[in-house]
Amino acid sequence: MSERYYLGIDGGGSHTRALVLDDTGSVVYRGEGGPSNVLVVGEERARASLEEALATWTDSVTGGVLGMAGADRPQVTRFWQTSAVPRIGGPVLVVGDYRIAWGALTAFRPGFIGIFGTGSVVYGENGTQALKVGGYGWRLGDPGSGLELGREAIKATLNALQHIGPETLLVGPVLQWAGVDSAERLISRVYDEAFDWRTVADLAPWVVRLAGTDPVAHAIIDRQGAEVHRQLHQVCRRLGLDRSAIGGLAGGLAPFWLEYLSARWSCSGVPLSLASREPVWGAAEWARRAFGNFS
Amino acid sequence: MSERYYLGIDGGGSHTRALVLDDTGSVVYRGEGGPSNVLVVGEERARASLEEALATWTDSVTGGVLGMAGADRPQVTRFWQTSAVPRIGGPVLVVGDYRIAWGALTAFRPGFIGIFGTGSVVYGENGTQALKVGGYGWRLGDPGSGLELGREAIKATLNALQHIGPETLLVGPVLQWAGVDSAERLISRVYDEAFDWRTVADLAPWVVRLAGTDPVAHAIIDRQGAEVHRQLHQVCRRLGLDRSAIGGLAGGLAPFWLEYLSARWSCSGVPLSLASREPVWGAAEWARRAFGNFS
Repeated sequence: MSERYYLGIDGGGSHTRALVLDDTGSVVYRGEGGPSNVLVVGEERARASLEEALATWTDSVTGGVLGMAGADRPQVTRFWQTSAVPRIGGPVLVVGDYRIAWGALTAFRPGFIGIFGTGSVVYGENGTQALKVGGYGWRLGDPGSGLELGREAIKATLNALQHIGPETLLVGPVLQWAGVDSAERLISRVYDEAFDWRTVADLAPWVVRLAGTDPVAHAIIDRQGAEVHRQLHQVCRRLGLDRSAIGGLAGGLAPFWLEYLSARWSCSGVPLSLASREPVWGAAEWARRAFGNFS
Repeated sequence: MSERYYLGIDGGGSHTRALVLDDTGSVVYRGEGGPSNVLVVGEERARASLEEALATWTDSVTGGVLGMAGADRPQVTRFWQTSAVPRIGGPVLVVGDYRIAWGALTAFRPGFIGIFGTGSVVYGENGTQALKVGGYGWRLGDPGSGLELGREAIKATLNALQHIGPETLLVGPVLQWAGVDSAERLISRVYDEAFDWRTVADLAPWVVRLAGTDPVAHAIIDRQGAEVHRQLHQVCRRLGLDRSAIGGLAGGLAPFWLEYLSARWSCSGVPLSLASREPVWGAAEWARRAFGNFS
C-alpha cells in the first residue's frame, strides 16, 4: 500500500499555511504563501497563495481540510471546493478558520476557543453541539478585537483633540499612526479611498500598553473586556462544559486578554490557557481523522 | 442700483436644495437637485446636482453660502470654491451642512442643534465659541444615528438567530430588509460588494417602533439615548448657554429623540424643540448677512 498523506490549510487575510501529516501524524511537509481570503484579495490571488503554500509538494493527498477565512459563506466554500480539489488530488472539506483553531487547541475534545486578532470570534463544541459567537467582522464590530480597540482609540483621540472628551495619551500614537496633525485630517484619513481599514488594528497594542496609566485607554479596555468575558462565559455555559473541557485563547491579543481575564474567569472549573498548537495542525489532523483509517 | 440676491445651498447625500433671498429676506427662487456630497457621488455628479438646483436661476448673485456635507475637509471646500464661483458669479462661503442647520434653528443666536439622520452631529455657538460633537461618520460611528440603530438591530438579529442572544421582534424586519432567511446570508449580504451601507439606516424606524414592546429594541434605544443625551448636554454646558438660548433637533429621527429626551432634558433652562426652518434658509440668510448691506 502506498503512503497516505493528509493536508491541512490555514487560509487567512495575510498568510496561507499548509501542513501535511502522514498516517502516524508526523509532519512531512510545511509551506507558506500569501493571503487567501478570497473575499478580500479576489480569486486569482487566493488561488496563487494556495499554490505558493504547496509549491514544493508534488504528491497527491488522501484528503484535505481547508480552514479558510470567510468559509461560512457558501460562495467561499464553493470556490475552494472547485479550486483545491484538482490541485491536491483528493477530497476536500472546507471549514471556517475558527474551527481548525478550535481543533488545534482541544485536539477535537469538548472545549472552546476565543480568537482575538484583527477581528474576534468565540467557538466551541461539546461533542454534540457547536456554538459560535461573534465573528461579525469590521462593519458590524467584534468585541475585544484589534479593529474595535483601534476604532475606540481613534474616537477618543478625536474627542480629546476637539476638547469634547478627556485628554489621553492615545493622541500621540494615533496621530503618528495616521500621519496627520489634527482632528480634521484624522477624519479625512480614515475616510480616504486608499485607506485600508484593517490597519486600524495596528492601534490596539497602544490601547493595551497605555491601559495601566491612561484613564481613557483603561476605560476602553474595561468596556471591551466586559464584552469579551461575557462572550466566552456564554459559550462555556451554553455548551455545559465541565472541568475536563479545554478553554483557550488565540490571536495577537490573546496574551493580553488572558491576563486581563485571569482574575475574573470562572466557568464550572474550565481552565483558560493560550493555544500552543498552530491552527494549521488542527486542519491537517482533522484531515487525518476524517480521511484516514483512524479508528 | 440693481437688485441684489443672496444664494443658499444645502448639499447632502441625497438632495441639493437652493434658495435665493433678496435684500428684504424674501424668497425669490427655490430649486432642487440630486446628491452633491462630492466624497460619495464624485465631482461630476456633485457639479450636475448644483446645476439642477439652479436650473432656472439665470441672474448672478451678490454672494452665496454653501452648506455642504463633508465640508470640514479641505478638498471638499476647495472643490466647491472652484466649481460654484463661476456658476453663481459672486463670492462663495463653503461651510459644513450642520452649521446652516444651526443657523436655521437659531437665526444665528446662541444655541445648539442636534441632527439625527443617517449620521448624527451636535453643533452649537454662543457668540464667541463654536463646538461640534460627533459627526464621525459610518466607519467610526455616531450615537443615535440611523446607521447606529440599524447596526445594533442587525447584531441583535444575528445573536437571536444563532441563539446566542434573546429573541427579538427585530428579526422579522431585519431579514425582510436584507431579503434573506438566515444569519449566514444576513452576514453575507452586509459584506456584499454591491451593498450600500447607508441603507442600514432604513432599519432605524423599526427599532424606534418596537422599543415600546420589545426588550431588545428597548435596550438599544436606552444605550443610544444615553449617548444622545450626553452629547447634547455636553455642548449645552460647555457653551455656557442659558434660558435665552435655543436648543433643537433636526433630521428624520429628531421627533423620536425629542420625545425620548422630554422627560430627562434639563440644561440651565435651555428649551429643546424641533427645527422648523429648513437648513437651506440658514444658508441663504447667512449669505444675506455676510454679503449684504445688513447692519
